Amino acid sequence: MKAAIITIGDELLIGQTIDTNSAWIGAELSKSGFDVCRITSVHDRREDILSALSEATGKTDVVLITGGLGPTSDDITKPTLCEFFNTHLVMNYEVLAMIEEMMIRRNWPVPMNDRNKRQAEVPESCMVLKNAAGTAPGMWFEKDGTIFISMPGVPHEMKYLMTEVVLPELNKRFTSQKIIHRNIMTYGTGESALAEILTEFESGLPESIRLAYLPATGIIKLRLTGTGVDQNAVSDLINEHVGKLYKTIPEYIYGENEESLEMVVGKLLKEEQKTVSTAESCTGGNIAHLLTSVAGSSAYFKGSIIAYDNTLKTQLLGVQDYILTKYGAVSENTAKEMATGVRSLLKTDYAVATTGIAGPDGGTETKPVGTVCIAVSSDRGTFSEKRSFGNDRALNITRFSFTALNLLRKQIIRH
Amino acid sequence: MKAAIITIGDELLIGQTIDTNSAWIGAELSKSGFDVCRITSVHDRREDILSALSEATGKTDVVLITGGLGPTSDDITKPTLCEFFNTHLVMNYEVLAMIEEMMIRRNWPVPMNDRNKRQAEVPESCMVLKNAAGTAPGMWFEKDGTIFISMPGVPHEMKYLMTEVVLPELNKRFTSQKIIHRNIMTYGTGESALAEILTEFESGLPESIRLAYLPATGIIKLRLTGTGVDQNAVSDLINEHVGKLYKTIPEYIYGENEESLEMVVGKLLKEEQKTVSTAESCTGGNIAHLLTSVAGSSAYFKGSIIAYDNTLKTQLLGVQDYILTKYGAVSENTAKEMATGVRSLLKTDYAVATTGIAGPDGGTETKPVGTVCIAVSSDRGTFSEKRSFGNDRALNITRFSFTALNLLRKQIIRH
Repeated sequence: MKAAIITIGDELLIGQTIDTNSAWIGAELSKSGFDVCRITSVHDRREDILSALSEATGKTDVVLITGGLGPTSDDITKPTLCEFFNTHLVMNYEVLAMIEEMMIRRNWPVPMNDRNKRQAEVPESCMVLKNAAGTAPGMWFEKDGTIFISMPGVPHEMKYLMTEVVLPELNKRFTSQKIIHRNIMTYGTGESALAEILTEFESGLPESIRLAYLPATGIIKLRLTGTGVDQNAVSDLINEHVGKLYKTIPEYIYGENEESLEMVVGKLLKEEQKTVSTAESCTGGNIAHLLTSVAGSSAYFKGSIIAYDNTLKTQLLGVQDYILTKYGAVSENTAKEMATGVRSLLKTDYAVATTGIAGPDGGTETKPVGTVCIAVSSDRGTFSEKRSFGNDRALNITRFSFTALNLLRKQIIRH
Repeated sequence: MKAAIITIGDELLIGQTIDTNSAWIGAELSKSGFDVCRITSVHDRREDILSALSEATGKTDVVLITGGLGPTSDDITKPTLCEFFNTHLVMNYEVLAMIEEMMIRRNWPVPMNDRNKRQAEVPESCMVLKNAAGTAPGMWFEKDGTIFISMPGVPHEMKYLMTEVVLPELNKRFTSQKIIHRNIMTYGTGESALAEILTEFESGLPESIRLAYLPATGIIKLRLTGTGVDQNAVSDLINEHVGKLYKTIPEYIYGENEESLEMVVGKLLKEEQKTVSTAESCTGGNIAHLLTSVAGSSAYFKGSIIAYDNTLKTQLLGVQDYILTKYGAVSENTAKEMATGVRSLLKTDYAVATTGIAGPDGGTETKPVGTVCIAVSSDRGTFSEKRSFGNDRALNITRFSFTALNLLRKQIIRH
């Protein structure tokens, strides 16, 4: 089961856009048991697209193509596919109706123009893959034993088509060796440190199970991949080793699969029917944003006070002036007062507060850029923590927020 | 001057690592006037590497290769290059001395082993590119009119070799055509609608200038690329057409290059020495997060009230009960009261408010998922807007936030 990926777009070749689509598709195809042999990126140029298509024909079972399906003149994937598959464009009225419906629903400011309509034209010989996430449909062709699937390059549209249409259909057609992945989400220690702790665990893994470390801004996903012909046997073996992992590093595991810290915190609050609020300085609303990015968060999230300016810390959150003067805005004492302040103002069971220096400026000798003080308040008291990270503003905001969510998580499961 | 990039590594094909090397190399080569025709990623597999090399031979002037030069058994680029260029490995004692020196300087815990020593072996026919950033040297080959350059896949090592050795040498050998890119950032209309408006502009472009549309969650980046031998002439021609673009779509252009809406809003507020606050319901703190993601934002951002729960809208922001009862929480009236409320509470010059239904649940017949009401308040009055988007929660939060930032931007520049 061989697969190839072709991504089309000038922006990829001149380095303006990093090709994240290929990585995502590669990961998904691998999970389904495909061997992705090659990724090719080419310009929106007829001859380059044609040669990439020709090279893949016959050599691979499936070719996944993204990009060049937009309504503008630089998008030439569709006519080039027509040329390659020796067919021509025809209007698809079902797709046209979908686009019209979407334009009305989204209340687009201008009426449908010819370009929008041309989005509904598809090569006559293809199977149309309906795209509920955008205006460009996906297209499925077959030639000389190879399946070609063309999708839009906009990541969320491509992901919609892959998840809803393409992967289920490919999985149906190709029966494969069973590959099972289990992802264990950890937070609180670095990759090398984790690898050191897991040395013995790793050396005890059977050949059919592989362990990979996938770090991302402080979160390290441990992926166990099991391979075999018998689904149940693979599954049992994976479960056994996941159990060992839980026994080895219980303090770092916060969830499984693609669960984020905010999803786990939300689940815990929902189970216990508790509410939460935040008082944020250096994280500037990011913790509130993370919490509310979870569907259904209104069940436990009540609101936040983003007190970027110190006057708001005193006037709205009731931080006492002498605390700010004596300990400074970036101090565990201030964080504690912010947490208790927002908890009583917004009447929630839990409250999280952050104050720190995200950078790149504003650091001092005793409180360098990357310093953060975090507090969590509940009816069991108010706990605080001081941490230091690096110099990158965006990374710091993410790390401060994750550390705060993790402290909140630990307080919730403590009782 | 045609170039190709080949990146080698299993991790790229299974999507474990996103290929950022290609984008970086592509950008650098474009700046030097190369047309990067193709990027190919292949496994650490002899036959896949060989076929990628063969395909590039004769067709391109330069092939940049990264990856597979490490000391472990899965790194097979070096023997495969030997096979392709019909040569064999010899020990390079200069490189060996560099590695020894580096190991001592870095205080490596283990003495030099055979694996380390093999890092100093290079194909006999190549020109060795010394790598002061790591242990694997770069290699420069020529065959049938094509130059092949092999570099390590570790990004900082590759960048060192490119910057210090490869690009200066390539620039010396190839007198180059100049390529200039200009990116114009737009918000507020779709790709098709924009293309419709720009039909005449596009048809008036000379052959040496190309226009590309790069959409991302509502923001459409228009990229003008000019090519020619005379840097100044290309630059003048690009400037002329950028000027035309500003005249054609002044209402949609908010900035240039990689500027985000929050950066532009921040710049405007800073220039005018004005402050801003937000009152957010459906965006849950994301507007505050975007504003504070910009370094130096404490100069104009004072804080926010995230009033997810309706009681906070009345108690903290002073939204009158009858407004909530008569018009509902998701209404332009409520958004206006939220904006004026937070502006007076936080004493800022501007205030933005959002209330809507991000989804996936919570929609009604008259107010479906994707509905948002936005208000901006300042001393020139309070303006509101009602918009509708799709069903995806994450996309809706982003779109609601961008639309709010854009409304704020328009209010700031209006006076």
